[in-house]
Amino acid sequence: MSRASLSGFPELTPQERIVEQYVLDHVRRTFELHGFAGIETRAVEPLESLLRKGETSKEVYVLGRLQDEPGAKRGRELALHFDLTVPLARYVLEHTGDVAFPFKRYQIQKSWRGERPQEGRFREFTQADIDVVGQDTLPFQYEVDVALVMCEVLAGLPIGGFTMRVNNRKLCDGAYRSMGIEDREGTLRVIDKLAKIGPDGVKAELSGLGLTPEQIDGALALASIQSRDTSFVEQVRALVGSNETLEEGLAELAAVIEGGDGEHMLADLSIARGLDYYTGTVYETTLDGREGFGAISAGGRYDSLVSDGKRTYPGVGLSLGVTRLVAALLADNTATRQVPTAVLVAVTSEESRVASRVVAGALRLRGIPAEVMPSAEKFGKQIRYADRRGIPFVWFPESGEVKDIRSGDQVAADPATWSPPEEDLWPRMVARKQG
Amino acid sequence: MSRASLSGFPELTPQERIVEQYVLDHVRRTFELHGFAGIETRAVEPLESLLRKGETSKEVYVLGRLQDEPGAKRGRELALHFDLTVPLARYVLEHTGDVAFPFKRYQIQKSWRGERPQEGRFREFTQADIDVVGQDTLPFQYEVDVALVMCEVLAGLPIGGFTMRVNNRKLCDGAYRSMGIEDREGTLRVIDKLAKIGPDGVKAELSGLGLTPEQIDGALALASIQSRDTSFVEQVRALVGSNETLEEGLAELAAVIEGGDGEHMLADLSIARGLDYYTGTVYETTLDGREGFGAISAGGRYDSLVSDGKRTYPGVGLSLGVTRLVAALLADNTATRQVPTAVLVAVTSEESRVASRVVAGALRLRGIPAEVMPSAEKFGKQIRYADRRGIPFVWFPESGEVKDIRSGDQVAADPATWSPPEEDLWPRMVARKQG
Repeated sequence: MSRASLSGFPELTPQERIVEQYVLDHVRRTFELHGFAGIETRAVEPLESLLRKGETSKEVYVLGRLQDEPGAKRGRELALHFDLTVPLARYVLEHTGDVAFPFKRYQIQKSWRGERPQEGRFREFTQADIDVVGQDTLPFQYEVDVALVMCEVLAGLPIGGFTMRVNNRKLCDGAYRSMGIEDREGTLRVIDKLAKIGPDGVKAELSGLGLTPEQIDGALALASIQSRDTSFVEQVRALVGSNETLEEGLAELAAVIEGGDGEHMLADLSIARGLDYYTGTVYETTLDGREGFGAISAGGRYDSLVSDGKRTYPGVGLSLGVTRLVAALLADNTATRQVPTAVLVAVTSEESRVASRVVAGALRLRGIPAEVMPSAEKFGKQIRYADRRGIPFVWFPESGEVKDIRSGDQVAADPATWSPPEEDLWPRMVARKQG
Repeated sequence: MSRASLSGFPELTPQERIVEQYVLDHVRRTFELHGFAGIETRAVEPLESLLRKGETSKEVYVLGRLQDEPGAKRGRELALHFDLTVPLARYVLEHTGDVAFPFKRYQIQKSWRGERPQEGRFREFTQADIDVVGQDTLPFQYEVDVALVMCEVLAGLPIGGFTMRVNNRKLCDGAYRSMGIEDREGTLRVIDKLAKIGPDGVKAELSGLGLTPEQIDGALALASIQSRDTSFVEQVRALVGSNETLEEGLAELAAVIEGGDGEHMLADLSIARGLDYYTGTVYETTLDGREGFGAISAGGRYDSLVSDGKRTYPGVGLSLGVTRLVAALLADNTATRQVPTAVLVAVTSEESRVASRVVAGALRLRGIPAEVMPSAEKFGKQIRYADRRGIPFVWFPESGEVKDIRSGDQVAADPATWSPPEEDLWPRMVARKQG
């Protein structure tokens, strides 16, 4: 990824942007093929509604106008959103009359976090979210569907293997109940840190919460259960006694795994996702062999995204970290050129510029990106203009010929019928040559 | 346009967003067909570099982190960009090694202005900019080219007629010189307000600048000159004596008009564009019959967008106000439906869901947006699900039939070969039905 002149605010070169744009187009097309409608929300929310979510409060960028008094009271100030979930909740309440429920929406936008930047952390980043939001009720099936959509997105990109780890909050809550654990939310939050602080760290923290050694062992044993199929069910049954919440969680997780794509999904009972509002299935996806890179997609089911007092709006959603994903792709991939142009139309003299414009116009009309040389120059200079940009073809209107400047091949061509090979039409993402 | 719950921050319904997305796709495709490379810059710039441009200083949103001390010193703070030109200048300096000059870039992003919102003004808005930036020099031809590209963008949208008014700073400067006007920049700034304050207001303000009655009449006479062809040249010659700057301006403006699309461009010598950095051609585009709506596109030539001390970077660019344009389009247009889905695949029972998934997958594989009913329901309820969303087709996997729910026609169909009519494949922008 290109240097960032401001830490935490990455910017791409034009060539890198082509890779990012490819990802964005692919993500959007997949979401739309599955029937998700696109929306955008404003970049700002009232500070108070962002702070309601608690734990990221210190990471919010607050907006001030330049002529505001310094030290003016902090009340109904605006702040930049730090995710796309809080804005969605507000949008749903404001547009109950404009959408049909269940509301399947995607949203591809930037978010901001005013945190101190660390390795792999961004202060400005692009997210691509899908959520399905119901009115009062939401069919369970969507907890399977959103996982399938996100796996299809990722499987369509040259990122190598990836694993979507799935768990269920009800399963953990029910199992902890059976173990007699009182502080079940606290326990889950500690288990969430397992990968970071290790089993010993978890043991110490759970002990601090007042869990008995047996409860600690039980919680860790539960978190160690993983399976590609539904065999996790028997493993859980061997560990703890049954109850209604546990059974519900087991059935739901089994349904997600059975309904999955059979390739990328893994029941992993250590996955907790810190955010309190998840109430059922939770998802976390990492790139195989690059787990340290962090989750590139995460989300879950929430029983009440928002409520207007009369009705509740349950939902399930998954977020894709586009900025992080593109950073991973750019490690191994690049674009075939830095400009969209496939054909540079040469200009012999300013008097014949009109003829060059006609050729370029005819090509563009058939969807072939073409530009006209900005000034009449010797052919060598015009070919160098194309070469510096990676433009593969130069058209000479006077001879009616087009030259592939890579091979040197030059052939007679008609702008009404000639096309470049498919792979040269638009810049493409390709694996970086090994050096 | 949909209500905004926060004044100046418009948000669209999913159906309106389809119209906006259509515009964004069209704009991007046109820019790319002409060889412009897309970039994005971060949303923030150091406050000091935004303030350097002076006149919008009070409209800047400054960012603070929540834990910052209130009243902390204003130094290297960050602020949201208010246009895409200041960020481009910085980007060019930082990426001189990553781009080939002349650098043709487009940029479609949001900008923010912390101003008090008024009719038709937005505090958050999307702009689509094209600029061509040279290193030390820039061929004049680009002053023709960018105008052609923007006219092609606008001509491809159902907005009715539009007029791109073009003037040249050198022409005005040279003419004012011939008239003996000292404060030529001040004069231009007053002339820029002609449409707002009228000839009497202009006279009073020019008089305040110290212009003689003859100079005032001359400046107003110059500003009254308009022509679709190059006849403005003779009108100017009849008004003022010649000088080198004037001749350069006349020749350039004539070249832009002659190189234009012969339909939308008008030489209009009252166009000034307030910003100081323009040095040659200036452009301003309004919708015919909706001039009060304001400019939907504007820009110009600048001799030095930015300099690193050693080299200068001259450029020419045009900005398109996407938010304003979409507002204009939404007055007369809507989308054929609110979701991408063309086909809802029905589900008879949860046991047969897999068969429904197979049908939907086969359709999506051929680029047909399809979704599977989230829960097994009576067919009537499934058809109502589709109807509420405007989904035109419902597929019944068991009978192997597809129903057009608008006409009621139901036919046998194979998911490997059936396609909806082209106009139903994706939601489209259409004229709103008259009342």
